[in-house]
Amino acid sequence: MLQPGPWRHYCAAIWEALPMVRQPAYRRLEALFRKSNVLGDTLSLLHWDMSTMMPDGGANARAEQMALVKTIAHDMITAPEIPELLDRADGEALDAWERANLREMRRAWVHAAAVPADLVEAQAKAESACEMVWRQARPAADFAMVLPYLAEVLSLARQTAQAKAEKLGVSPYDALLDQYEPDGRSAEIDAVFADLEDFLPGFVARALESQARRPAPAMPAGPFPAERQKAVGLEFMSALGFDFGHGRLDTSLHPFCGGYPEDVRITTRFDEADFASSLMGVLHETGHALYDFGLPDGRWRAQPVGKARGMVMHESQSLLIEMQACRSREFLGWAAPRLAAAFGRQGAEWEPGNLYRLGIRIEPGYIRIDADEVTYPAHVIIRYRLEKALIEGGLDLKDLPGAWAEGYRHLLGITPPDDRLGCLQDIHWFGGAWGYFPTYTLGAMTAAQLFDAAKRADASVLPGIAVGDFGPLRAWLRANVHSKGSLLSTRDLLAEATGRPLDPKVFQAHLTARYLDEAR
Amino acid sequence: MLQPGPWRHYCAAIWEALPMVRQPAYRRLEALFRKSNVLGDTLSLLHWDMSTMMPDGGANARAEQMALVKTIAHDMITAPEIPELLDRADGEALDAWERANLREMRRAWVHAAAVPADLVEAQAKAESACEMVWRQARPAADFAMVLPYLAEVLSLARQTAQAKAEKLGVSPYDALLDQYEPDGRSAEIDAVFADLEDFLPGFVARALESQARRPAPAMPAGPFPAERQKAVGLEFMSALGFDFGHGRLDTSLHPFCGGYPEDVRITTRFDEADFASSLMGVLHETGHALYDFGLPDGRWRAQPVGKARGMVMHESQSLLIEMQACRSREFLGWAAPRLAAAFGRQGAEWEPGNLYRLGIRIEPGYIRIDADEVTYPAHVIIRYRLEKALIEGGLDLKDLPGAWAEGYRHLLGITPPDDRLGCLQDIHWFGGAWGYFPTYTLGAMTAAQLFDAAKRADASVLPGIAVGDFGPLRAWLRANVHSKGSLLSTRDLLAEATGRPLDPKVFQAHLTARYLDEAR
Repeated sequence: MLQPGPWRHYCAAIWEALPMVRQPAYRRLEALFRKSNVLGDTLSLLHWDMSTMMPDGGANARAEQMALVKTIAHDMITAPEIPELLDRADGEALDAWERANLREMRRAWVHAAAVPADLVEAQAKAESACEMVWRQARPAADFAMVLPYLAEVLSLARQTAQAKAEKLGVSPYDALLDQYEPDGRSAEIDAVFADLEDFLPGFVARALESQARRPAPAMPAGPFPAERQKAVGLEFMSALGFDFGHGRLDTSLHPFCGGYPEDVRITTRFDEADFASSLMGVLHETGHALYDFGLPDGRWRAQPVGKARGMVMHESQSLLIEMQACRSREFLGWAAPRLAAAFGRQGAEWEPGNLYRLGIRIEPGYIRIDADEVTYPAHVIIRYRLEKALIEGGLDLKDLPGAWAEGYRHLLGITPPDDRLGCLQDIHWFGGAWGYFPTYTLGAMTAAQLFDAAKRADASVLPGIAVGDFGPLRAWLRANVHSKGSLLSTRDLLAEATGRPLDPKVFQAHLTARYLDEAR
Repeated sequence: MLQPGPWRHYCAAIWEALPMVRQPAYRRLEALFRKSNVLGDTLSLLHWDMSTMMPDGGANARAEQMALVKTIAHDMITAPEIPELLDRADGEALDAWERANLREMRRAWVHAAAVPADLVEAQAKAESACEMVWRQARPAADFAMVLPYLAEVLSLARQTAQAKAEKLGVSPYDALLDQYEPDGRSAEIDAVFADLEDFLPGFVARALESQARRPAPAMPAGPFPAERQKAVGLEFMSALGFDFGHGRLDTSLHPFCGGYPEDVRITTRFDEADFASSLMGVLHETGHALYDFGLPDGRWRAQPVGKARGMVMHESQSLLIEMQACRSREFLGWAAPRLAAAFGRQGAEWEPGNLYRLGIRIEPGYIRIDADEVTYPAHVIIRYRLEKALIEGGLDLKDLPGAWAEGYRHLLGITPPDDRLGCLQDIHWFGGAWGYFPTYTLGAMTAAQLFDAAKRADASVLPGIAVGDFGPLRAWLRANVHSKGSLLSTRDLLAEATGRPLDPKVFQAHLTARYLDEAR
């Protein structure tokens, strides 16, 4: 037997200094995942170019490039050696970040390897075909036209859900949710949404009453030239701390945030009649971008643990900037004169108070993407319930339009006149994105809770925003969220940052303060 | 033994209809090379983005992406199975295009596989280090500073040349040349350049005398706003037949043509004091783009045989547009009023005759990239002789500055005052591009011969250009050059298109007509 002695310390020092010796499997996985993720970054750039720069005639070639790069990246992390490497690495000496990285590698491998290649291919084809038909069915309000295609997409999604559920040890719906929100569980969402559902209908009624008592806001009249809108967008991005040495703003049909931490590309589109829609797009995507800029760098870049935590946390960062910070009275006090100057206008409609009231108008409607902050969660809860029932088999697809209408009647008190304004409005299901919807509202609630915690932790957050200085807010977010990457689960990340798990009461308090507090 | 009979025809029909059966190795190679070339297209897009759109902070991430994609593409065509597949495919039933494709696959494989991986890596590092030092040595006119780095680059280039020479069965210099100009041979270049060398010194003197007798051209005075320059560039690109459904014009530090046939991206840069430099860049790159647009599509896209023939033919296409077509009196008759209108100017300096004389000014100088059409070949011949001697060992690197000066004295009658205006001016050798220089002048000569043949074949080529209609020229080029891809060698392609191999006399006749013909 070995005896204790100085030479053991010596050996331990060598042991510590030679990670390749004590972590051969783990190190090999790090190298493999780095390559796969660097290809993922390449894909992100190809997608950005497709949406912003590519001439139409380049579409087929780009599709082939992207499919090939995706296949190569997929093959890297589903190579036959991977499961054994994952198992061997489990037994190696790993620190907390390495351990978390290994956990995320396994998750990525499960999602990539659980589904047989022919199912993946069938799914891609069915989704593409369904999306094409949906583009015609939606304007025609013709659900029957797209029904057989959607049935095929749903059937394949259920097979995928089943395959992943077995590997992950969760329900089929949760397996789909896990693709977008790692460790997301419908049992927790059910509880949070039930709480919100109790709160919402009564609150919407009171908020509408409150709104009716306020003076109606005046709408600034256009046109607002696109280049002025872009200039003011760039000015606000700078104030928010967007790093133009590592990013860009461009124009695309739908705003998005792409790229990777060294090179973050956000987009917006310009409506010359309505500067607010472009600007809110810029602020929203800048929130996403700040998250990407703040992710762990060095060794954890392009590693699974170095990535953003999931769609809930990502959406929380965009909504924290757009909805929490930039619809505040403090921000609008700083922004209003800059907007008036940028467009060369003046008058009562450019007063901060007027712009604030414009930003918090509420109006129950049929369309999710046009919804205000108060009624938005209802749109999401309805979709979440429906997609869960469709995946679990509790709802027959042909009954979707009726169930949809029933949900709107129940939660918002309105009934869509047709399926164009009903279950045909969103691309998600038709394109195969099942399990995505709840992340929008979980993100909004997380944003409220994080912004509340940031203001409590640093008294200079709001005064900073009032003078266009987002430094204090950004520093808190970077320290408490961005720099953690995927080290923790979403719930632990939120609990460490705010002192408690997701609490619907914080979001409700935010809504109450903003929409009912007549004193402000 | 099989007897002749109808069933044999039946079998032959099946045989013809089942290429996978009679060409299993060839078909497998086609699939592999397609993937590798699609990755090459992706690389081209990544490079374009790096040069036009990427924020500076994205450089390291992009370098890693490009190195990884390059490695994957390289590994695909150097897989252990490739040599055997190439040999087996040689014995399979192939038509002329397939046979040519196989020949080009073998060439690509030889270039990719001949050099051991550690030499490739050492070369990339040495070239990168040398280029960095060169960026300081050039402005300082300090050849000694960069000499040890250049010596290392040259030494590794010679090793590469040796390795490829053995596989290709050619001389080391020709092996390097073959990277840029497939089947290019220095024996042929020597003959062509010797002919040109006899012609040039006397011709330059006569052309200068001829120029002295003409009225001096007047230079249109700037500033020329960049957006007007871009507008006129786009207008001229349209006239030339640039397909904006499959391409773009952007801005970069150095003009280039990137992308692939479905999505060709050309760039220029704008000097507000000198619209001609930007416009000539646009016309030159449009010539490259027209070649790419016209390459074979369908099955031959992303196959070796579907690619442009080589750098000589590619440069010939850009120079044919820029130098042959767009410096003609015919083109300038159409272009001059459009330029004057675009910049809102008028006066004698905007007359076609004046712009023509501006375009054909000659002035012997030290700098290749500033050289006129007449003296340019001398710059190339000097470099070709020197790099050949350096690779073959007939010249010691430390004697390069002296040999350079001697070349200029002999061919152009001038002696550079320092190495900044001498052997430090071009990036090529410092970045590892040995064997590239001769393609510039071979391209110029090829352009003259092709344009001459096009005008003879279709009498409407010049009248078309005179009214801004490049359709006849483009149709001839597409039929005789572009659509052939790499089916033929450069010399066979030129001979089929023009009736003879490269003939220095055609280029000389072009120079004589343009620079000495006082009657025009």
